[in-house]
Amino acid sequence: MTTVSLDDLNAMDRAAFVGALGEVMEHSPWVADATHAARPFSSLAALHRAMVDAVRNAGAERQIALIKEHPDLAGKAAREGTMGADSVAEQSSVGLDRLTDEEFATFHRLNDAYRSKFGIPFIVCVRRHGKDSILRQFERRLRNDSAAEREAALTEIFRIAALRLDQRVAAADRLEVHGHLSTHVLDTHGGRPATGVSIEFCEITGGRTQVIERTLTNADGRTDRPLIADRPIPIAVYELRFGVGDYFVRQGVPLADPPFLGVVLVRFAVAEPEGHYHVPLLVTPWAYSTYRGS
Amino acid sequence: MTTVSLDDLNAMDRAAFVGALGEVMEHSPWVADATHAARPFSSLAALHRAMVDAVRNAGAERQIALIKEHPDLAGKAAREGTMGADSVAEQSSVGLDRLTDEEFATFHRLNDAYRSKFGIPFIVCVRRHGKDSILRQFERRLRNDSAAEREAALTEIFRIAALRLDQRVAAADRLEVHGHLSTHVLDTHGGRPATGVSIEFCEITGGRTQVIERTLTNADGRTDRPLIADRPIPIAVYELRFGVGDYFVRQGVPLADPPFLGVVLVRFAVAEPEGHYHVPLLVTPWAYSTYRGS
Amino acid sequence: MTTVSLDDLNAMDRAAFVGALGEVMEHSPWVADATHAARPFSSLAALHRAMVDAVRNAGAERQIALIKEHPDLAGKAAREGTMGADSVAEQSSVGLDRLTDEEFATFHRLNDAYRSKFGIPFIVCVRRHGKDSILRQFERRLRNDSAAEREAALTEIFRIAALRLDQRVAAADRLEVHGHLSTHVLDTHGGRPATGVSIEFCEITGGRTQVIERTLTNADGRTDRPLIADRPIPIAVYELRFGVGDYFVRQGVPLADPPFLGVVLVRFAVAEPEGHYHVPLLVTPWAYSTYRGS
Amino acid sequence: MTTVSLDDLNAMDRAAFVGALGEVMEHSPWVADATHAARPFSSLAALHRAMVDAVRNAGAERQIALIKEHPDLAGKAAREGTMGADSVAEQSSVGLDRLTDEEFATFHRLNDAYRSKFGIPFIVCVRRHGKDSILRQFERRLRNDSAAEREAALTEIFRIAALRLDQRVAAADRLEVHGHLSTHVLDTHGGRPATGVSIEFCEITGGRTQVIERTLTNADGRTDRPLIADRPIPIAVYELRFGVGDYFVRQGVPLADPPFLGVVLVRFAVAEPEGHYHVPLLVTPWAYSTYRGS
Repeated sequence: MTTVSLDDLNAMDRAAFVGALGEVMEHSPWVADATHAARPFSSLAALHRAMVDAVRNAGAERQIALIKEHPDLAGKAAREGTMGADSVAEQSSVGLDRLTDEEFATFHRLNDAYRSKFGIPFIVCVRRHGKDSILRQFERRLRNDSAAEREAALTEIFRIAALRLDQRVAAADRLEVHGHLSTHVLDTHGGRPATGVSIEFCEITGGRTQVIERTLTNADGRTDRPLIADRPIPIAVYELRFGVGDYFVRQGVPLADPPFLGVVLVRFAVAEPEGHYHVPLLVTPWAYSTYRGS
Repeated sequence: MTTVSLDDLNAMDRAAFVGALGEVMEHSPWVADATHAARPFSSLAALHRAMVDAVRNAGAERQIALIKEHPDLAGKAAREGTMGADSVAEQSSVGLDRLTDEEFATFHRLNDAYRSKFGIPFIVCVRRHGKDSILRQFERRLRNDSAAEREAALTEIFRIAALRLDQRVAAADRLEVHGHLSTHVLDTHGGRPATGVSIEFCEITGGRTQVIERTLTNADGRTDRPLIADRPIPIAVYELRFGVGDYFVRQGVPLADPPFLGVVLVRFAVAEPEGHYHVPLLVTPWAYSTYRGS
Repeated sequence: MTTVSLDDLNAMDRAAFVGALGEVMEHSPWVADATHAARPFSSLAALHRAMVDAVRNAGAERQIALIKEHPDLAGKAAREGTMGADSVAEQSSVGLDRLTDEEFATFHRLNDAYRSKFGIPFIVCVRRHGKDSILRQFERRLRNDSAAEREAALTEIFRIAALRLDQRVAAADRLEVHGHLSTHVLDTHGGRPATGVSIEFCEITGGRTQVIERTLTNADGRTDRPLIADRPIPIAVYELRFGVGDYFVRQGVPLADPPFLGVVLVRFAVAEPEGHYHVPLLVTPWAYSTYRGS
Repeated sequence: MTTVSLDDLNAMDRAAFVGALGEVMEHSPWVADATHAARPFSSLAALHRAMVDAVRNAGAERQIALIKEHPDLAGKAAREGTMGADSVAEQSSVGLDRLTDEEFATFHRLNDAYRSKFGIPFIVCVRRHGKDSILRQFERRLRNDSAAEREAALTEIFRIAALRLDQRVAAADRLEVHGHLSTHVLDTHGGRPATGVSIEFCEITGGRTQVIERTLTNADGRTDRPLIADRPIPIAVYELRFGVGDYFVRQGVPLADPPFLGVVLVRFAVAEPEGHYHVPLLVTPWAYSTYRGS
């Protein structure tokens, strides 16, 4: 996706502005159009607030129309190719384009139940969720009343818009849409960072473990890059698998056979997609500890 | 299996004695016969030593004969029903009677390779091993020379005999054939034993996780019975799965949604079947540690 | 002190019974006298309850008289030798017979303030407190009203009586007047109990550290005897000083010079004199943890 | 002290150069003089190496002379005011100008023993040591032979010179003469950095505890500035005293009275003055752990 600078946006005429930001709110260029008059924007945050205000001030009817422009999750629009490009990428990010038949049936059933209760599509900012979390959201929100769900839909639409702006617009400030997930292995047997420890970073979805990344600790006992950064951390259960047995073998430490600790598993859940999660491992051949650090 | 007391054994005539202990060494009642003269035995340990001495003093030819009386692991004798009752139970304990076709083929190949190199069956005290460990033993011992393997076979036979005596004979002393595996959950958030924590105790075999037992912690944060006691702990990789998320929900502790720690997995290996393993968990909603305790 | 069995007490006539238990309530044999009729007592707990009931049923006037029989803490009676033998031993246990001039002046001032406000001596079961805790109690209870203080005095008198019965009477049951304080050192570098670690067990009083006991860990990493057992643990701040640097030197572990961890200090407070406190140390040359265990 | 830039030094004539660096080696401007010809220096490290080379190439006689220019530690020169300004500041940094009579006598005795054995003053880079460590160095080095001590003296002189250059010369590079000591408090009860925890940072010298700094943790659970940075960390035993009891009271956590953990003491030694030491505390009201982190 080509990005545009905030300065350039501030200088654009109405047509160019709507051309650049028309899809920030799904199939609803009128929001960008209504925002144009508020130029110039001193920050990306100010631009986002202006678009939110445009929706808030547009009245219930246009809000409902905006909501209804959104496709079902894992729905017909996806299969028929009528979904906006942003939505395609977003639904794909969480694997909604690669569902099993059983999962597809579940989504179908929930979409139908939701539409028949509320008359609108179920909207959630999918980049902030793993698949299990989306299903949990679905089930919880089905218990709401219509007013609460219209408000929830708008909240999610504004989150989606923030992420779309974050990807489209270059500015001095950044929207608070990014989480950070990192790890660190400290060898408390030798009193130093543990270097060269293999790490499998996995997501647990639907009871299955999927490896997201395989990496190694560097000289500081950290990974060269954070496990997740510059995007929301999907709400999900994760697992880090640390190859500590092989590490201590390489250190020449006398170990039991097989070693008491071979692969250490640390399973944890992320609940705040925009949060800072540091999950270190302190380890000897006979003991370890882990915690949510900072 | 009916047990006999050491006192009764000490009072038995030769025929009764051989009747009681003839199968302690596989299909080789001559060992019991040769041991009878050494009565009375002051302890079960003395009886075991006397049987070991009887084999040691019998010369190489009878030792080879004793070795050859043993069935293959997961072999033809098992399928044809010609294996001694003790061996049947022992091989069953580690699941050698429930192999997949692939596993059966592996054992078959290793048995053939071993017999063709050494001219004797591969003997291992299976109650001291998980399936993976038996395969690892097989591969290692295939690299030995004949003398080392004859000695290894006798060592294993004496271990098997010790376990058979332990089951058959009631005495004031016990042979050192028992391991002990236990756990303990301490709530370091509330400063007390964690009560009612669900625990799944699993063995990891061939990459698969098999639940051995489901239990709960009691008022002391312990399980009512040790996870393993009064028998060797098979050399294997185990996993404890602690339901700490549900526990803290029940304590009324405010948690993230989903909780940072739902199920804590502690995976560890046992290398000493007769060892004492205590694997506790110290846990808050945000941190935990574990170690080989005592 | 000679002990008497509960059976013997149950068989005693009134005079012998009062002779045996007359000082369980300070200088107030009438309590034992009033309790005699309730014989036989099925347990020590029943005897204690009967003595408590005798006081409860005696009316306010006699209760006040009982309260007034008690000496001041660190007061004139102590210096003039008119204090009961139990009180002498009790006040000595917490060092009230060895006060500095400044401490003596503090107690004198508090005693006077208490007597002038409530008209009774300040009573506290001193065996349940360190010196700092007694002063804290004094200051808190000075803020009570008279009714609350009469009740507090009786509560303390019944605790004192329980400890006196515990020392005087042998019975099948024991009163719940005993705490338990223990420690344990686990070497998580080597994966075994740490043997031969020097431990200084100290009490912090008035800002000063007093060594109560010097000991060593045994083969289980524990001390041969608990640090405190069979008596209340005085409410106080304690410190355990573990000589882990010397221990790891003896293990032949390569250490920094000077070692990162030489003497590990674990300072903690006891708030429940009848509680079970286990304060272990898990330690490598570079890391340690401690917790209130069970 | 006024600093000079490396560029300016590179442009100086001999007299100015010697004027600027003449005291980098104690009372021995000939070293700077001999270094002048090697200009320009591409880095501060290159300048330091050139001064070291000048001494190395000057021959044994001038080296001994350089060594003898150094004052005794805590010696007569200090009292008579004939010591160089750098040495005055250095000896003061470790408190050698504020010795007790007993300490002064100890230094006097060691200086005499050293001079009478080796014929030179005892030289040590005092900024790298606490007082106890200097005495330990003294006692160890007294056991060396003369050749080893001449070499040890030069090594220390070069370390002193590096620190003097570090203070006098501004350059793009920095000499490796700085250590780093920091801490961090993580509340593993609440799953967040512990903010507002009082910290006393102390040095243990001669059995006494001296508070170096009192500070508080900030919103990240860290101190605003490192405990020590931009200078060597003196080899010594340190203690961090964390006011965790008050912290948890402020969090509204229900605590025992007195709280199990009031002030947590973490005592550790620094052995590498140029090392990176991070000493965090993970703490709940009932448990804590600490380690040498990175």
